[in-house]
Amino acid sequence: MKPGLPFFFRACLLLWMICPVIMMSQEDNDVFLIKKIHTVALSTDSSYNLLKELCTQYPGRLAGSAAYLGAAGFMEKHLSEMPHVHAYQQDCTAQYWERGSREEVYFTDNKGNRLDVRALSLGNSVSTPPQGIYAEVVEFQSLDEVEALNPGALEGKVAFFNRPMAKDVIHTFHAYGRAVDQRSSGASVAATKGAVAVLVRSVTHLIHSLPHTGGVNYRDSSLMIPAVAISTVDADVLSEKLSQSSVHVFMKTECRMVGPRSAPNVIGEIKGSEFPEKIIVVGGHLDSWDVGQGAHDDGAGCVQSVEVLRIFNALNYKPRHTIRCVLFSNEENGVAGGRTYADNALKHYEQHVAALESDAGGFSPRGFSFDASPELFNDYYRKVSEWLPLLEPYGYQFEKGYSGVDIGPLKSQGPLLVGLRPDSQRYFDFHHNENDRVENVHPRELALGAAAMASLIYLIDKYGLN
Amino acid sequence: MKPGLPFFFRACLLLWMICPVIMMSQEDNDVFLIKKIHTVALSTDSSYNLLKELCTQYPGRLAGSAAYLGAAGFMEKHLSEMPHVHAYQQDCTAQYWERGSREEVYFTDNKGNRLDVRALSLGNSVSTPPQGIYAEVVEFQSLDEVEALNPGALEGKVAFFNRPMAKDVIHTFHAYGRAVDQRSSGASVAATKGAVAVLVRSVTHLIHSLPHTGGVNYRDSSLMIPAVAISTVDADVLSEKLSQSSVHVFMKTECRMVGPRSAPNVIGEIKGSEFPEKIIVVGGHLDSWDVGQGAHDDGAGCVQSVEVLRIFNALNYKPRHTIRCVLFSNEENGVAGGRTYADNALKHYEQHVAALESDAGGFSPRGFSFDASPELFNDYYRKVSEWLPLLEPYGYQFEKGYSGVDIGPLKSQGPLLVGLRPDSQRYFDFHHNENDRVENVHPRELALGAAAMASLIYLIDKYGLN
Repeated sequence: MKPGLPFFFRACLLLWMICPVIMMSQEDNDVFLIKKIHTVALSTDSSYNLLKELCTQYPGRLAGSAAYLGAAGFMEKHLSEMPHVHAYQQDCTAQYWERGSREEVYFTDNKGNRLDVRALSLGNSVSTPPQGIYAEVVEFQSLDEVEALNPGALEGKVAFFNRPMAKDVIHTFHAYGRAVDQRSSGASVAATKGAVAVLVRSVTHLIHSLPHTGGVNYRDSSLMIPAVAISTVDADVLSEKLSQSSVHVFMKTECRMVGPRSAPNVIGEIKGSEFPEKIIVVGGHLDSWDVGQGAHDDGAGCVQSVEVLRIFNALNYKPRHTIRCVLFSNEENGVAGGRTYADNALKHYEQHVAALESDAGGFSPRGFSFDASPELFNDYYRKVSEWLPLLEPYGYQFEKGYSGVDIGPLKSQGPLLVGLRPDSQRYFDFHHNENDRVENVHPRELALGAAAMASLIYLIDKYGLN
Repeated sequence: MKPGLPFFFRACLLLWMICPVIMMSQEDNDVFLIKKIHTVALSTDSSYNLLKELCTQYPGRLAGSAAYLGAAGFMEKHLSEMPHVHAYQQDCTAQYWERGSREEVYFTDNKGNRLDVRALSLGNSVSTPPQGIYAEVVEFQSLDEVEALNPGALEGKVAFFNRPMAKDVIHTFHAYGRAVDQRSSGASVAATKGAVAVLVRSVTHLIHSLPHTGGVNYRDSSLMIPAVAISTVDADVLSEKLSQSSVHVFMKTECRMVGPRSAPNVIGEIKGSEFPEKIIVVGGHLDSWDVGQGAHDDGAGCVQSVEVLRIFNALNYKPRHTIRCVLFSNEENGVAGGRTYADNALKHYEQHVAALESDAGGFSPRGFSFDASPELFNDYYRKVSEWLPLLEPYGYQFEKGYSGVDIGPLKSQGPLLVGLRPDSQRYFDFHHNENDRVENVHPRELALGAAAMASLIYLIDKYGLN
C-alpha cells in the first residue's frame, strides 16, 4: 500500500479486507472447523499408531490381568505427555477371571469316531471337574425349547445351543442381539433341567474355524455349569453328526473366577475454559477378552477418544467444558469400570453434560445413536438434530437408541448419552476371537471415526444442550 | 369356517380379512418390497460365490485376452441359466495390449549401490528398446513443474512423478482424481521436454511395496515414451536417494499394443411386461487389469448387476420395463465396450430410461450419484429425491455428480445415469494391483450393494422418471 493514503481510505480498505471474516456466520465457522477436524485426523496415522502399540504390547487385556495393568500405565503415560491434558488412574476393582490352560474338547459318535475341536470357555464360566466331563450332546435352537422340557430332562447331558446369527438382518448388532441369549443365558437355563455343561455356537455370521468367546451370566450361583463356545464350522459339523448318530462330548477346562483385583479406569482431561465443572466424556473400554488383541473391541474406541483430545490440541481449540477422555475397565465381564465411574461422579457431585462412547469397532463412521433419561431425551434430541446439516455431508446420520455399556450407568445423572455407530458389516468377523488384531483395523476408517466423534463433541461443547 | 354361513356374512368376513392388504398404501408396499430385496440379497452368498468363480477361473481379464473371452462365456452361460433372462454377447472390438515379460527396473546411486524394485508398465504403454533404458532420474511433484521447463531440459532423462495421493481428502476418489494426472499424462508432458521414459508413484494412500498399474494416455503418437509405475515404498526410497545423490534407473519392459481383438459385452435381460421397448441398464465392467483378479474392479459390479436380476426373480417381481444387465468390455484401457453399447443403442433406436453402474468397489453402499443431460437433470433429480425417504433408513444418500465410465457414452441419448457409491476408504488399497482379489471383498458388503442397486432399479421401474 502506498504510504500517505488518507486515514479514512485506509480504514475503509482494512474494513473491506476483514469484512468476510467478521461476516462469517457461526455456521460457516462450524463448517470450517469440522472440515479442519477431519483434515487433522486424516493427515497422520496417529490413532492407528497408538492402537498398534497398545495391541502389540498389551494384547488380551482382561480386567485385572497384568496386560490390563500394563495397558493402563501405558495409556496414562501417553495421555500425560499430551499438552493441556491432566492424566490419572481412577481406582476400580473388578472380578478377575482367568482361562487357565487351553480347553480340551472332542466329540465321539456311536462308531467311536473322534473329532477334536478348538473351543473357548465363555468368560466368567466355571471349569469342568479336573478329570473333565464326558456326556451325550443334545441340540437346541433356542432357550424356549429347553425351558419347555420337564425338570431333569437333561440330567447328565450337555446342551448344545446352535441357532445361527440371522444373515438377513441388515444391522449386524441387531442380529447379534437376537442370537446372544444362547451364550449369555444358555447355561443357566440348561442347568435347571439337569444339564452338566453347555456348548454354544459362536455368535458370528462368518462360517470359520475360530471360536468366539464372550460372557456367560449365571442366574443362580448354586446352578453354575461350564459353558464353552465352539466355532461355527464345528457347530455345523456337530449338528450334522447329531442328525446321523448320538454324539458324546469330552470337555476339560480349567478356567476360574479368581476374585477381586485392581483394574483402574484411565482418565485424561482438558479443563474447560468457561465451565470447568461441567464435563463431557468421550471414551471406550480398555479391557478386552484374553484372545486376540482387542483391536476393534475396544482398543479402537480408546485410541479414538485419545485422538479427540489430540485433534483439539492440534487445532488449538480451547473447550468451554471439561473434555474428559475415559478408558473404562471391565466392560467385557462385569462393567465395574462404568459403574465405578458413575458412582464416583455422583459422590463428587460432578455435572455430566454428555458422554460419548465408541465401542462398535474401528470401521467407517455412519453416525451416532442418542439416549438419555426419558424426561430429558426429547429436548436433547431436538437440540442435536439442529446440527445434523453440519454432519450429513460426511454421511453421518442420527438415530435414537442405545449408546454404550460403560456410559450406561451415568444415565440417571442426566447427561446426553451417545454411541458412535460405525458400519457394522465386518464387526462380528473379529468380535471376541483371535482375529481381533490391529492389522484388521483400517487406519483411515479408524481416524474418520475419531473425526466424527471430535466434530460432535465440538458442537456439544460450543452450543451446550440447553 | 362353518359350512352353511350366509353368503353375505362370508363376503363381509372375506373383505375384513383382505382389507389390510387392500389398504396398504403404495409407500407401505415399497417399504415392504425394499426390505424383501435386502433380505433376499443377504440370505445367500450368491453374489460372492459368483465373484469367487469369476475371479479364480478368470483373473487378469484384460479386454481381448483369453481370460476375458473365457469370462465372457462364463458370465453369458450363468445369465442364460437364470429364469426369464435372455443372455447374449454383443460384438465389440478393443485394442488389445499385453504386458509381456516381467518388468526389470533398478536404481543406482553415485556410489554404485543398486536397488532392484518391482514395477508395472502402465496400460497401453510402449516398451523400452530391447536392451532397456539407462538414464538419470529427475523428480517432479506435478505436470506443471515439467511444463515450465525449457524444451530439451529432460533430454535423455527419466522423469519421476512423485506427488502422493492426499491423505486429508475424505472421499478417496477425489484424492485419486487430484493425483492421477501424473499417471495418465505424465509421459506425454515429459516427452515434450525430451524425457526418454517416466516413472510414476502408484496412486494409492497405502504405503506398501506393490506397484499399482493403470492407463497412460499419449497425446501425440510421435512422442510415446515408456511409462512405468513403482510402489509407494519404492517411490519414497527413490526420493530419499535423490535428496542425497544423483540416481540412474535401468528399465526394461516388453509390453506392446497388439491391435484390435474381439472383446464382447455380455448382456442378460428380463423383458418388460408393460414397456418392453424401454430399457433400464444395470451394469459393471467385465474386463480388469492383468494383475490381480479384478475383484473390486470390477468383478464386484458385474456380479451385483447379475444379482439384481436374481433378486427380482426370487421375489417373482415382473418388471414393467426391460431390465438389462450389461457387463461392459474394455473399461480399463479404451472404453470400447461402453462406446459400442451406446452406438448400438442409437443405431437400433433403443430407448434408455436409466443406466446404473457399479464400479467403485464391493464395499458397504453409502448411496448413489446422479447425472444426466443438463436439460433433463433437474426433473430427474426432483423425481428420484421423492424416493429418498425409502432408502435413507438403509443409510443410502443421494448426490449429484459423476456416474460411471461405461454408461457415460449413453448420456446424450437422455437416460438418467446413476453410479453406486460404496464406502471409499479401502478402495485404493486394492485398485489396479495384485491384492485386488476375491478374499478382499466382504460377502455382506457386496450383497448389500446389490440390494441397494435392486431397490433403486425397482423404484425407477415402478414409477418411471416422468
